[in-house]
Amino acid sequence: MNYSIILYVIGWVLNIQAALMVLPCITALIYGEKSGWAFVITMAVCLIIGLPLVIKKPKNRVFYLRESFISTALSWIVLSIFGALPFWISGHIPNPVDALFETVSGFTTTGASILKDVEALPYCLLMWRSFTHWIGGMGVLVFLLTLIPMTGGSHMNLMKAESPGPSVSRLVPKVRSTAKILYAIYIVLTLIQIVLLLIGGMPLFDSLTLSFGTAGTGGFGIKNDSIAGYSTYSQVIITIFMILCGINFNAYFLIIMKQFKQAFDIEEVKVYLGIILISTLIIAFNTQHLFHNFGQAFQQAAFQVGSIITTTGYATTDFNLWPGTSKVILVMLMFIGACAGSTGGGIKVSRFLIMSKTVGKELRLLLHPRSIKKIQIDGHPVEHEVVRSTNVFLIVYILIFAASVFLISFDNFDLTTTFTAVAATLNNIGPGLELVGPTGNFSEFSNFSKLVMIFDMLAGRLELFPLLLIFMPRTWKKF
Amino acid sequence: MNYSIILYVIGWVLNIQAALMVLPCITALIYGEKSGWAFVITMAVCLIIGLPLVIKKPKNRVFYLRESFISTALSWIVLSIFGALPFWISGHIPNPVDALFETVSGFTTTGASILKDVEALPYCLLMWRSFTHWIGGMGVLVFLLTLIPMTGGSHMNLMKAESPGPSVSRLVPKVRSTAKILYAIYIVLTLIQIVLLLIGGMPLFDSLTLSFGTAGTGGFGIKNDSIAGYSTYSQVIITIFMILCGINFNAYFLIIMKQFKQAFDIEEVKVYLGIILISTLIIAFNTQHLFHNFGQAFQQAAFQVGSIITTTGYATTDFNLWPGTSKVILVMLMFIGACAGSTGGGIKVSRFLIMSKTVGKELRLLLHPRSIKKIQIDGHPVEHEVVRSTNVFLIVYILIFAASVFLISFDNFDLTTTFTAVAATLNNIGPGLELVGPTGNFSEFSNFSKLVMIFDMLAGRLELFPLLLIFMPRTWKKF
Repeated sequence: MNYSIILYVIGWVLNIQAALMVLPCITALIYGEKSGWAFVITMAVCLIIGLPLVIKKPKNRVFYLRESFISTALSWIVLSIFGALPFWISGHIPNPVDALFETVSGFTTTGASILKDVEALPYCLLMWRSFTHWIGGMGVLVFLLTLIPMTGGSHMNLMKAESPGPSVSRLVPKVRSTAKILYAIYIVLTLIQIVLLLIGGMPLFDSLTLSFGTAGTGGFGIKNDSIAGYSTYSQVIITIFMILCGINFNAYFLIIMKQFKQAFDIEEVKVYLGIILISTLIIAFNTQHLFHNFGQAFQQAAFQVGSIITTTGYATTDFNLWPGTSKVILVMLMFIGACAGSTGGGIKVSRFLIMSKTVGKELRLLLHPRSIKKIQIDGHPVEHEVVRSTNVFLIVYILIFAASVFLISFDNFDLTTTFTAVAATLNNIGPGLELVGPTGNFSEFSNFSKLVMIFDMLAGRLELFPLLLIFMPRTWKKF
Repeated sequence: MNYSIILYVIGWVLNIQAALMVLPCITALIYGEKSGWAFVITMAVCLIIGLPLVIKKPKNRVFYLRESFISTALSWIVLSIFGALPFWISGHIPNPVDALFETVSGFTTTGASILKDVEALPYCLLMWRSFTHWIGGMGVLVFLLTLIPMTGGSHMNLMKAESPGPSVSRLVPKVRSTAKILYAIYIVLTLIQIVLLLIGGMPLFDSLTLSFGTAGTGGFGIKNDSIAGYSTYSQVIITIFMILCGINFNAYFLIIMKQFKQAFDIEEVKVYLGIILISTLIIAFNTQHLFHNFGQAFQQAAFQVGSIITTTGYATTDFNLWPGTSKVILVMLMFIGACAGSTGGGIKVSRFLIMSKTVGKELRLLLHPRSIKKIQIDGHPVEHEVVRSTNVFLIVYILIFAASVFLISFDNFDLTTTFTAVAATLNNIGPGLELVGPTGNFSEFSNFSKLVMIFDMLAGRLELFPLLLIFMPRTWKKF
């Protein structure tokens, strides 16, 4: 194991974290909040540890998949621990486990909260809370790639470890340029949303924080009733941008390159939009008696569907009160998740595409034992490697899910709460059903359960393997 | 497609069904019940259709995997429809969908019932109901194999389609002899249990019906409180035999062959027994406040664990009232299921073994990309084919599960009821939680939901593919 390169990456992550905290500091200055000092202290701590780690460039810059998985997992843990300090130092979240939960929930773009009264937080903490979504959405190591040059395959391995989806495609031959393009698209999408929300009359602070939460598909609101209090215009804008941020960013790159035909022909995106449309229609019919008219039911259904499938987690209504079918659909969307290569979580539409095609192939094989045909996506055959890793992902996912449900069951809540709490954290969504529904929060769980869910949120964001690997004793053995 | 051989098999199935109905007829004679006529009528119908189908042996006796899957699926459907006639003709279950549900639940060894008052049924119907478990447990086509000679690979393909587990091993070179040995073991196990229950003072009728339900891991009781009213001795005997019938029958064959070392060294069996022991201990600790002492808690926990993991479904207590952790464990056991090559249902321990080993291999591969090692079970490498089919099984399982939950959700019950109703039928268990818990039943569901669950029970018993195949239009196309 190349430890020096891992420490070097972690050093950079700490320095970047310090730089990113300038935003909440400015917020504190503007609103004259003394909680701003908590950020100044944290920034100092980050730099004191981070700067010495990056002064000497490591000689051996070779990054195997192993090193990139380990440094990704450790970076995210370090990021979360230091990111939690302001909440704890300022005294607004006195329990350190709660502070860590809230921060991990932020960076992993989960949006599950232990706060009973969000509105009691000072503006600088609210800003940091939402900003963690934005940072975590595209990934901090992807950001790092745009900054520091590394050797050969290192980039690709780092990106593989942090980017969601069964396979990572580089948009342009150079990974560093790919990272830059991705971040550019991300920033532009965020800016357009901020402007559109401002046009609708939303205050600047709200526009910024909610756009950060939307672009990262995070879901932390700044009001106790999430998005319910905002105008229909704002809700529609947020709906659209949630759905846009759940689309594979490759599509936007193709649009920029004026390859419209290819952009609108990505199978995963078509299936993703199809699922959203069908789910919205079924829920709208199923819940229309709860609303004034079908139009309103459709708008509310679209918001909730968009919020859950993209794993954002904003809410405009308490879907705990919806009929069974609508709730079942939402629970299914929790697992499906957004597109690969987007900022959303969940199992990802592309994995389901690969799985369904695998089943179709198997059934054909039963009928015609001698047919040999690889499954195809977007007209290209899917490599055996990708199919296998999709299968393994599914198995690991189920095992982690089951283990988490078991561990959390000791808190003795009802099955729906326990089950959806794990679904909401492992898929990086935020709200579940019953006690952890849109009007509830995660404060009632024991510290032990919170730690389990912190693991789940990180495992979900990093797609299981990096986090599993650092808990395997074999990883740390010399060989 | 070789239709003539399929019709020939179905004809035999009908004739066998007529022969098997002699048992309830005798019961009706002994108890002087006029419902016995319903069986006589059904037997006549079976023979009128069945005999002409088997008079002419088909010239082309070649059985591909395709034909065996189709004839297995159709045989089970025919068996269920004609097996349901006595319930309907006698007027004891007037709704035909209910009669079919009850019969499919019997043959698939599920044990889920739509009856609110089991004790109101005449003895002959109770006998038939329990006997269907026994018939379905080992499989009617496996029975057919012991009777009629077929050509070459046909046997193996038929057995593959009906026997549970990721791979079928023949105990002896001839498949026909394998089938005979399996049935012999099955009959001996059943007889020993009947004798032991009789020794404990249980009436003959109860001993017979409950032993049929245990050996087939079915779960239909003949009392409204299932097994709760019987003595502790009887409960312990039933616990032991449920667990024994969930073991891979290969183990018994090895014991008969005096290969004790190999018999006690089967990995799947060790893991299966380990899961039972650990689950029982955790539940006993978790529920001991509900019982007089730890011993009683352990006995009750063992019964329920044995009943659920083997997918039998008998109950001696209402585990709906147990604490969250115990309920979560039971739900997990529902999915794990028994050993391959047993009469139990569920996903099967061996599939979980293969899946866990696949994950271990993948993690090692991340650390050492150049390691090439096949996963092993019982010291033998597992063929790629088996690993692949296990993965595909898991995917299909999840898809059918999700689709069923969605379709049943329109009945608008709570999520736990909906979720566990599907889990209980797809895994061939019987009771779930909440409304379908041990003291509840499936009568409240709509006919549509019952049809979905009928599909699930058959799909679960035949391990998904045969049933999927007959619903694929491509299957029926000429080629």
